[in-house]
Amino acid sequence: MELLNKTISGIKAADELAKSEAVRHMDSLIKPIGSLGTLEKIAVQLSGITGQRSNTFEKKCTIVMAADNGVHEEGVSSCPQEITAVQTINMTKGLTGICVLSQHAGAEVVIVDIGVKGDLNAGGIINKKISHGTRNMAKGPAMTREQAVKAFETGIEIVGELVSKGYKLFGTGEMGICNTSTSSAVLMALTDISVEQAVGKGAGLTDADYENKKRVIERALETNKPDSNDVLDVISKVGGYDIAGMAGCFLAAAYYRVPIVIDGFISTVAAFAAYKLNPLVKDYMFASHSSEEIGYKHAIQILGLEPMLNLHMRLGEGTGCPLAFNIIEASQAVVKNMATFEQGAINDDFLVDIR
Amino acid sequence: MELLNKTISGIKAADELAKSEAVRHMDSLIKPIGSLGTLEKIAVQLSGITGQRSNTFEKKCTIVMAADNGVHEEGVSSCPQEITAVQTINMTKGLTGICVLSQHAGAEVVIVDIGVKGDLNAGGIINKKISHGTRNMAKGPAMTREQAVKAFETGIEIVGELVSKGYKLFGTGEMGICNTSTSSAVLMALTDISVEQAVGKGAGLTDADYENKKRVIERALETNKPDSNDVLDVISKVGGYDIAGMAGCFLAAAYYRVPIVIDGFISTVAAFAAYKLNPLVKDYMFASHSSEEIGYKHAIQILGLEPMLNLHMRLGEGTGCPLAFNIIEASQAVVKNMATFEQGAINDDFLVDIR
Repeated sequence: MELLNKTISGIKAADELAKSEAVRHMDSLIKPIGSLGTLEKIAVQLSGITGQRSNTFEKKCTIVMAADNGVHEEGVSSCPQEITAVQTINMTKGLTGICVLSQHAGAEVVIVDIGVKGDLNAGGIINKKISHGTRNMAKGPAMTREQAVKAFETGIEIVGELVSKGYKLFGTGEMGICNTSTSSAVLMALTDISVEQAVGKGAGLTDADYENKKRVIERALETNKPDSNDVLDVISKVGGYDIAGMAGCFLAAAYYRVPIVIDGFISTVAAFAAYKLNPLVKDYMFASHSSEEIGYKHAIQILGLEPMLNLHMRLGEGTGCPLAFNIIEASQAVVKNMATFEQGAINDDFLVDIR
Repeated sequence: MELLNKTISGIKAADELAKSEAVRHMDSLIKPIGSLGTLEKIAVQLSGITGQRSNTFEKKCTIVMAADNGVHEEGVSSCPQEITAVQTINMTKGLTGICVLSQHAGAEVVIVDIGVKGDLNAGGIINKKISHGTRNMAKGPAMTREQAVKAFETGIEIVGELVSKGYKLFGTGEMGICNTSTSSAVLMALTDISVEQAVGKGAGLTDADYENKKRVIERALETNKPDSNDVLDVISKVGGYDIAGMAGCFLAAAYYRVPIVIDGFISTVAAFAAYKLNPLVKDYMFASHSSEEIGYKHAIQILGLEPMLNLHMRLGEGTGCPLAFNIIEASQAVVKNMATFEQGAINDDFLVDIR
C-alpha cells in the first residue's frame, strides 16, 4: 500500500511553462496556426510531460497484463478460459496482433503474467502472478483488497523498472478472457452508466449469451455493492488483475513523467480508475483508437479524451498503441524538422497574412 | 484527349477472387473474426488491387500538384498569392509539413509545378506548367477545355512514370492559394451540396471575408454555368490545375492497379471528379484523415469512403497521406506476420468457440 500511496500522491501536473513554449514554437512553423490539429496538441502535451521542446522515443513498449477472471464460469464469454494462457504464450513467440504491430512500429511488447490460471512454461513472460485467476465476482469479491493493491503496485513496479532501463513511451494492453465483463462492471460501479451502455458482445456472443452477460454483471454489482467512491473497493470486488495492473501503469507513468497510450475498452477503464485516484494522470495519457466495444465511447467521453485513430478495432492486447506510437513520433518530426516562417523565407509581409 | 480517354476506359474493377482469398487468410489468423476492423479491410482491398495476398511498399510517394488560381484577385484567401511559389520551393528543401511527415514514413514527395504563377528557380520540381495560374473563375472559365485535359493527362503521365520506376503506393497533395475556393465550386457543380456545406474559412478568413468567399463562388457558378454531367466542363470552368492533375493521378492509379491515398478536402474533390469519370476508381482509393475543412465531410460521404485518422488537420499539401501509409503498411504486417490458429496452437476445440 505504501508504494501505491506514494505514487498517487507523488504525481504532479504537466509543465505549463514548457507547454507555452511548445505552443510558441508550433506557431512559428510554416503552416496556418493550428492546421496540424492533433499532431500539434500531442507535441504540446509531450512538452508538458517531459519539459522538453522535442522528444525522442527510441525505446518504447506496450505492457500486456495477462490474467484470468473467475466470472468465466458464468458463461459470459464465447471463449474457453485456456485461451488466456495460450495467447499469452503466443505473445512470447511474436505471433499475436500486438506483437506484429509493435514490430512494425519499432516497439517492444512486455508480457506480464499478473494472474493467469495455470503455470506458463514460456520464456519472455514476467511472472508476477498474484493468484491463478480471480474468483467469480457474481458470487462474491473477485479478489481481496490486498490482492488489488498488489496488482496496482505490480503495474507501478513494471513501469518503474522500464523507465530505469530507458523506455520513454508506453502502451497498455491486456489478455484475459472475460475482461470486457469485468471492465463493464468497474465502469458501471464508478459511473452512472447503464448496463446497456457499458456491456457489449465482446469477441462474439449470441443474443442469449449477451443477455446472460448483462444479468451476470448486474448480479456481480448487486452481490458486492462496491463503493463508487473507493476505487480499490470497486476493482477488488468486480475488477480483474489486468485492469488493476494497467491502472498502476497509468499512475506510474504520471509519477515518472512519461507518456502512456490507452488502447481500447479495458485499457480505458483502467485509465479511468487511475484518473479517479488522481485526476492529474490525464495529463500523461493519449487515447489511441476508437474501439468498437460499446462501453468504450462512454468511457473515453467521461475521461474527456479523443482517440486519434478510427479503425473499428476490437481485438484488445494493446493493438491500438503501436499505431498511436507512430503518430506520436510523427508529431516530433514536425517539431524537429519543419521550418519556421523565418527559415522558410516567408517574410514579414506574408507572415501577417498567412497567420 | 487520347491518353485521358484510354486511361478512363482502361480501368478495371478490383480482383474479387484475390479479395476472397485475402478474407479467408484474415479469418485464419489468431483473433476474433473482423476484430482488426479497418486494418483487415485495407488488406483485403490491397489484394483486390494487386491480386497478391501480401504487398510491400518500399517505394512510395505523395505527388504534390502546385498551381495558382486567378480567383485570388477576388479576395477569397487571406494569403498573398506568392505563398504558392514560396511553399513549392520550400517543398524542394524538405521544409514543409508533407516533407517532414513523408521523411518520418520513409516516403518521398514528388513536386509538380502544374501551373504556378512565376518561374520557379529550384531543382527538384517537375516542370509541367500549363500556364502561369488559371484565370479568374468569377469572371469567366478558369481554363480552356484543352488546358483541363492537359492537366488530367499530366497527372496520368506522372503516375505512369513513377509506376515504371517501381513506386507502389501513392498519395495526393497540393499547394495552391485559393484552392479551397475552386474545390468548393467543383463540389457544388458536381453535386447538390449547398454553399454553406461546401465552403469553409480556409486558412483563416474573417467573417466578412468568408461571406465574400461564398458570394464569389456562387458568382463563378452563375457566370460559367458548368454542366454537372460533364466533369471536364466543370473542372475547366471553376476548377484548378491542381485538382485536375490529382484527378488524373487517381485515374492512373486505378489504370495501373496501384493503391492511392486521398488527403483532405481538395484531394477528395479531385478523387470525386475521377469517380464521376469512372466509378471503378474507388476500388483503388484510401481515405486518410478527416479534414477540418467544412466541405470535406460532405465530399467524403458522397464518395462513400471513411477516413482512418481523426486528427483535426487542415494543412493540405498531402499531409494525411504519409500517416496513412504507415497504417496501410501495418495492415501488411498483420497479413505477413500474425500466426494462423493452426500455428498459434489454438486447436480445434478452441477454434469453434473463439470464432
